[in-house]
Amino acid sequence: MSKLVIVGSCAFDAIETPFGKTDKILGGAATYIGLSASKFSGVSPAVVSVVGEDFPQEYIDLLKNRGVNTDGIEVVKGGKTFFWSGKYHNDMNTRDTLVTELNTLADFDPKVPATYKDAPIVMLGNLQPSVQLGVIDQMIVKPKLVILDTMNFWMDIALDELKTTLKKVDVITINDEEARQLSGEYSLVTAARKIHEMGPKYVVIKKGEHGALLFHKDEIFFSPALPLEEVFDPTGAGDTFAGGFAGYLAQIETVSFKTMKNALIYGSCLASFTVEKFGTERLQSVTDEEIKERLREFEKLTQFDIALN
Amino acid sequence: MSKLVIVGSCAFDAIETPFGKTDKILGGAATYIGLSASKFSGVSPAVVSVVGEDFPQEYIDLLKNRGVNTDGIEVVKGGKTFFWSGKYHNDMNTRDTLVTELNTLADFDPKVPATYKDAPIVMLGNLQPSVQLGVIDQMIVKPKLVILDTMNFWMDIALDELKTTLKKVDVITINDEEARQLSGEYSLVTAARKIHEMGPKYVVIKKGEHGALLFHKDEIFFSPALPLEEVFDPTGAGDTFAGGFAGYLAQIETVSFKTMKNALIYGSCLASFTVEKFGTERLQSVTDEEIKERLREFEKLTQFDIALN
Repeated sequence: MSKLVIVGSCAFDAIETPFGKTDKILGGAATYIGLSASKFSGVSPAVVSVVGEDFPQEYIDLLKNRGVNTDGIEVVKGGKTFFWSGKYHNDMNTRDTLVTELNTLADFDPKVPATYKDAPIVMLGNLQPSVQLGVIDQMIVKPKLVILDTMNFWMDIALDELKTTLKKVDVITINDEEARQLSGEYSLVTAARKIHEMGPKYVVIKKGEHGALLFHKDEIFFSPALPLEEVFDPTGAGDTFAGGFAGYLAQIETVSFKTMKNALIYGSCLASFTVEKFGTERLQSVTDEEIKERLREFEKLTQFDIALN
Repeated sequence: MSKLVIVGSCAFDAIETPFGKTDKILGGAATYIGLSASKFSGVSPAVVSVVGEDFPQEYIDLLKNRGVNTDGIEVVKGGKTFFWSGKYHNDMNTRDTLVTELNTLADFDPKVPATYKDAPIVMLGNLQPSVQLGVIDQMIVKPKLVILDTMNFWMDIALDELKTTLKKVDVITINDEEARQLSGEYSLVTAARKIHEMGPKYVVIKKGEHGALLFHKDEIFFSPALPLEEVFDPTGAGDTFAGGFAGYLAQIETVSFKTMKNALIYGSCLASFTVEKFGTERLQSVTDEEIKERLREFEKLTQFDIALN
């Protein structure tokens, strides 16, 4: 089994979209990443996170039952779980955050389980950069690949910390606006080059419904998002993408531009399921056969044959 | 030689971008489409348009020298050529129109040259829908393929006319916002299905820097735009795309979803040159070898290999 360390939030989300609204449901970056990575046979993902006593055991069991190691999920006595609430606009591309209660996440001190400190792949979900760095430092064998997801919030309030962490990172995943903010460049090609210079050899720029770009030296690869009849709830799509990306690389155990291209497709494929229902519902139910069928749709969507001599 | 009829404007453009500004230079939908289609050997494009006496002979010669038949370009005595002026914002994705002087284009009564009335492919550049319909009606042999480009302006002021014309059209090319306006649907998948029902068997949705989608029955194909370090001037990119799309199909002389996928890639490929310099400058200078090299870049950008049994 190929070990994959995943660090990030486990959370309650309350989501409102033009199609309806939910009560507090299971959410959080590490949850989506873990569920997504659990789709890859031969991969043993471990989620490192923190929750309060209010976090239902059934949510932890849900991860366990899918082969996700949960030893690294700390339950804080008397504590409350991170809560986020948001409302999507009609275009489903923009949203307002209604509530953010950090609760136990505010003092998150992640502890990687001893048996996972030699994992070859580490996926750092969006968190304070110093906390992400702390996780890298706990690894007793230098990982083959460290993947970091972050967001504009940390660029605003902890840029130096982020830049320090990035020096130890192999792959960064951010969205297009964040890539522009981090690099100060409008062109994504130039932005990626500047971000390379900050540390990550691979730069993944997520463009939501417009797909994702992978940059490595002078090479570029693009995966579209699957055009869908209906996007029901975009929450967790980026984290599902990251989980598919990391999970595929853990399974294949080979890191190269070629395998990372496939990782980008797998990430996009899994994300296309997440947005079909509220929260983690669709990701929980998706089968191997459905994933395979959808990968075929990605092939049909992108593969062409022009005879070039 | 495979004949291709192109109808649209020949114009003067004055363009301002963050990189600089131009005086009145050669522009117009039919100009870009014609130059783009002229890159395909074995294709004989004819431009049907109207200009004023102020339109320099060297512009007409420029088309002629590239094998474009210009017999259908009417020069109106004492008339002035259509003039457009626009200024791009810093993001290069949005622009303000500063001047639109229709001039001779206001009374454009296109006349397809007699020798082209049996052309298998007709490319209708953005014009009043009734004028586009008039061109279809001039064809004495039913074309294999009629491609129509249009814009939101005609949906605002001549929707019924547009819908009448669409019944005789095989392929429509519009941008994402226009597809949403025409169909009343936000999802592009649903929008394409509704537009199918209006007539066009193939729907091409252009998303600018985010690529282009081709819809046909239940099949979807996507071509990205090539990520560029610098977009210098987006003017004419959509028309260059249309010219590449139509030119490739004229060359291959076979209309199917498979050939149309390649046409989408050729269109995107040629458009990626146009944006590199002001106006038609780059499109004029691009060589066959450069086009081939860039097609290889599109392959590298999109082709992957996941073993699916």
